[in-house]
Amino acid sequence: MNPHDLKLYQSAGSPNARRVRIFLAEKGISMPMIPVDLGAKEQFSDAYAAINPRKVVPTLVLGDGTAIGEVPAIWRYLEEIYPEKPLLGSTPKEKALVAMWERRMEQEGFAPTMEAVRNAAPGLAGRAIAGPHGYDQIPALVERGRKRVADFHADLDGLLAGRPFVAGDAFSVADITARVALDFAAKALDLPPPDGAGSIARWYAAISARPSTDA
Amino acid sequence: MNPHDLKLYQSAGSPNARRVRIFLAEKGISMPMIPVDLGAKEQFSDAYAAINPRKVVPTLVLGDGTAIGEVPAIWRYLEEIYPEKPLLGSTPKEKALVAMWERRMEQEGFAPTMEAVRNAAPGLAGRAIAGPHGYDQIPALVERGRKRVADFHADLDGLLAGRPFVAGDAFSVADITARVALDFAAKALDLPPPDGAGSIARWYAAISARPSTDA
Repeated sequence: MNPHDLKLYQSAGSPNARRVRIFLAEKGISMPMIPVDLGAKEQFSDAYAAINPRKVVPTLVLGDGTAIGEVPAIWRYLEEIYPEKPLLGSTPKEKALVAMWERRMEQEGFAPTMEAVRNAAPGLAGRAIAGPHGYDQIPALVERGRKRVADFHADLDGLLAGRPFVAGDAFSVADITARVALDFAAKALDLPPPDGAGSIARWYAAISARPSTDA
Repeated sequence: MNPHDLKLYQSAGSPNARRVRIFLAEKGISMPMIPVDLGAKEQFSDAYAAINPRKVVPTLVLGDGTAIGEVPAIWRYLEEIYPEKPLLGSTPKEKALVAMWERRMEQEGFAPTMEAVRNAAPGLAGRAIAGPHGYDQIPALVERGRKRVADFHADLDGLLAGRPFVAGDAFSVADITARVALDFAAKALDLPPPDGAGSIARWYAAISARPSTDA
């Protein structure tokens, strides 16, 4: 198996796919990108479910056919085989701090945003959690999600007051997840960071100047 | 800094702390263990909040004072400095598969168990999500959590019908998270795997024979 023989199943509108696209752009990696049409529910097709039984995007498929789902797992593979321009940290301590902060950005920002969206959207009735099992929407999660996003904005602004990037001095996957969460909350929930969040504004301008911003 | 000068803040009854204790036992690592008394709400003390502002256990503290929270981040640090007996995978492909399966065990088994517990326990009113922010309990999450745990049992039994361990041929952190989730659902929700789950039973017996089982 050639470890660089890869393809990515993904969707332009998927925030999780965007987390991988920004990673690829930062590393300068290119590979075949295979679109999965979420609007047409293509992720539920037999063909796609055979690739990813969770029926979600993105999925990285290796040359031997192994399918890697879950964004942090895809990042881990790519960082191993493309170690240049590390985005998961360089030293053991940095790797741990990046893992910690990326996870916090996901759990405190990305996940509540997705939860508020999925429990409100009429088109997602009966599919409040991504994956193969059907779960009913719970309206109380919409309001709780919005409150959590507001807490996330306040906490992130406080964090960025003391450091250039989320995990410290270097751009990392923690910045990617925070940025994708912010953008999706602004777009899908009409919840941008508040006007007074000056540290978020400074950081956001800095990362938006990077070539990966349009990925 | 001596990278092996470490201490762990943890609690005997915490499932997240147990994920780290089993990891340490599997690796044969020992370090000072500093108890945090969750029953006395010690995690909310100023002293502990200064170590981990999220006010949760466990926290790994390095020799230079750096505090690493979040179980996968703690594992990442330990695997980097103690690479023998790998629990996060050996090759790039194994590392990615372990990351994928560990995450799925957490999101599909561990998280719904915790959610069902935290949204029901009278002592956790106003603290339905671990961390510094207060969120009200949502009763509908208790029933949904129980349904998700039942789905988890069925899915895990199907997975283990085709492989010895969760991520494939080797014991890994994916087994640790699955096992801690199963045990906690059985204990705190009275939801053990169903009698017919023979593949879970075979796997559970195998991992319970390991010396780390009492950690």
